[in-house]
Amino acid sequence: MPISLNHGAGGEEMNALIKSFREILKIKNDWKNMDNDSATLKIGERELCFTTDSYVVTPLFFPGGDIGKLAICGTINDLCVMGATPLGISLSLVIEEGMTHTDLKKIMSSINTVSVQTEVPVVTGDTKVMEKGKLDKMIINTAGIGFAPILFDKPLESGDVILVSGTIGDHTAALLSKRFNFKTSVISDCGPVLIETNSLRKEIKQAKDITRGGLAANLNELAQKNDVIIQIKEDELPIQEEVRSAADLLGLSIYELACEGRFMCAVSRKNSKLALEKLKKYNVHAKIIGSVRKKNDEPMVVVKTKFGERILPMPTGRLIPRIC
Amino acid sequence: MPISLNHGAGGEEMNALIKSFREILKIKNDWKNMDNDSATLKIGERELCFTTDSYVVTPLFFPGGDIGKLAICGTINDLCVMGATPLGISLSLVIEEGMTHTDLKKIMSSINTVSVQTEVPVVTGDTKVMEKGKLDKMIINTAGIGFAPILFDKPLESGDVILVSGTIGDHTAALLSKRFNFKTSVISDCGPVLIETNSLRKEIKQAKDITRGGLAANLNELAQKNDVIIQIKEDELPIQEEVRSAADLLGLSIYELACEGRFMCAVSRKNSKLALEKLKKYNVHAKIIGSVRKKNDEPMVVVKTKFGERILPMPTGRLIPRIC
Repeated sequence: MPISLNHGAGGEEMNALIKSFREILKIKNDWKNMDNDSATLKIGERELCFTTDSYVVTPLFFPGGDIGKLAICGTINDLCVMGATPLGISLSLVIEEGMTHTDLKKIMSSINTVSVQTEVPVVTGDTKVMEKGKLDKMIINTAGIGFAPILFDKPLESGDVILVSGTIGDHTAALLSKRFNFKTSVISDCGPVLIETNSLRKEIKQAKDITRGGLAANLNELAQKNDVIIQIKEDELPIQEEVRSAADLLGLSIYELACEGRFMCAVSRKNSKLALEKLKKYNVHAKIIGSVRKKNDEPMVVVKTKFGERILPMPTGRLIPRIC
Repeated sequence: MPISLNHGAGGEEMNALIKSFREILKIKNDWKNMDNDSATLKIGERELCFTTDSYVVTPLFFPGGDIGKLAICGTINDLCVMGATPLGISLSLVIEEGMTHTDLKKIMSSINTVSVQTEVPVVTGDTKVMEKGKLDKMIINTAGIGFAPILFDKPLESGDVILVSGTIGDHTAALLSKRFNFKTSVISDCGPVLIETNSLRKEIKQAKDITRGGLAANLNELAQKNDVIIQIKEDELPIQEEVRSAADLLGLSIYELACEGRFMCAVSRKNSKLALEKLKKYNVHAKIIGSVRKKNDEPMVVVKTKFGERILPMPTGRLIPRIC
């Protein structure tokens, strides 16, 4: 079986492929968190964080953002959810011959807006051009580095609470509305989460941005990494009616919709009220959606619905391609 | 004029495009060398170096290497020529649907070979897949970080000597032989320069790897950055006869051929003999090719031929596309 779109979709197939890469690339080294949002390396009293993502989103421009905003936010957020303050971003463009300078300038301006807002500079880069027809318009890669005074990698315990920083799935819904020419008021949540992670520096035990694979992939990764059961209350999920309708219409699970400016985090029960209050200052839709249970079983994610409980599996098969 | 292949070729058009990006992205920050092979930031007593490159080479496999080896070596070398010891590499793949696992495994194994040889780990990554027909097989992005105890950024002076670490142009010749189906014994020089830059840590004032744009682009950048005249002796250039023939046949200037495992460096006249001896230990073709003159004119590169002297301009127009 050659490489299929599933291998890039953020679910089980992608994880298996990445695992096969790791089996080849495994020289001894001091880095940690190599399967997390950023790899980390202790340098003196601080943790150096390093991350990368390539962006192949289509269309390049969508309600609430474009590929440039997506790229810089994605990399900033991968640093933030580890507890780091981003120090610098690299920007590598691969452009299809024939792209207009106007579009390119719009994309660079979007990157600059986020750079100014977050005070994170773009410090190094690369530009390549491919022949017309050899690339679908443009690919952006960003990598980022930052230092975390203390990593968000405290062990999860029974009773810990899971919060999300805002409504889920807006990015996927906005992108698909543009792709399939729907008129809707939904815009992508694409944006930096730096201000939120900074303000919750003391409360966050662990955090993850809810990108490819949505809550389903990211909650399962959190459960597996920590060897715990995570219970989610479906009624508590903050989701816009329009986004839920889009998911229904397209036959998608709301748990597999991606965000590009939301994260989930685990905090202790005693800190949960304070954490929620802080998050609500930035987004009124921030919500406690579940909790951590001591496991007497395999690690898993359980969704509590009105009808009863069900296991939320790691996504598999063909998810929506090229949403980021 | 929309984006053309020239904008990615390493010459004047690319530099103008990058300059236009910099005019948009210019928030205040403490990073230095943002137009160099790695951007640098002073952290305590050391310099943090950060670099990135995307690789769009075609074909993916060529005599002496493949896109994987090219990517990891390119990023390691961009750190090395700044004086850094690479600490970790990020690896981001964008794969066209339908690629075989066999090819992918070969590429990952090439990356691993260099990683083991240089003791530089791949620590973080990303995998995306694009639909068949939307990408020409594969793009790899690597970013890298490292610390330099002392940067290779000492000012150049009149009398300083310019060395190259081996024969020039082998990569371009090997790649084109595969692209145009020539039989030749030339293989790409693609490889890490870490051992050389480490052993010349005390002697090197400044260094550059001789990639896109070849000697012409990289010598001109060095001259302009330092506001000096660099004089090259054409007779001293180490170049294989086969590579020279390939250049003649294809109407290419030998000064615009790229290497992917060679660098040039400036050292003081008094250190030049020692530096050459050290370089020759790793490659017998290492050579002194020129020197730095105090300028009483614009910064420029002058080539001394048997016939007389001529100015070597920054390359412009359509260079060979997708050599890296």
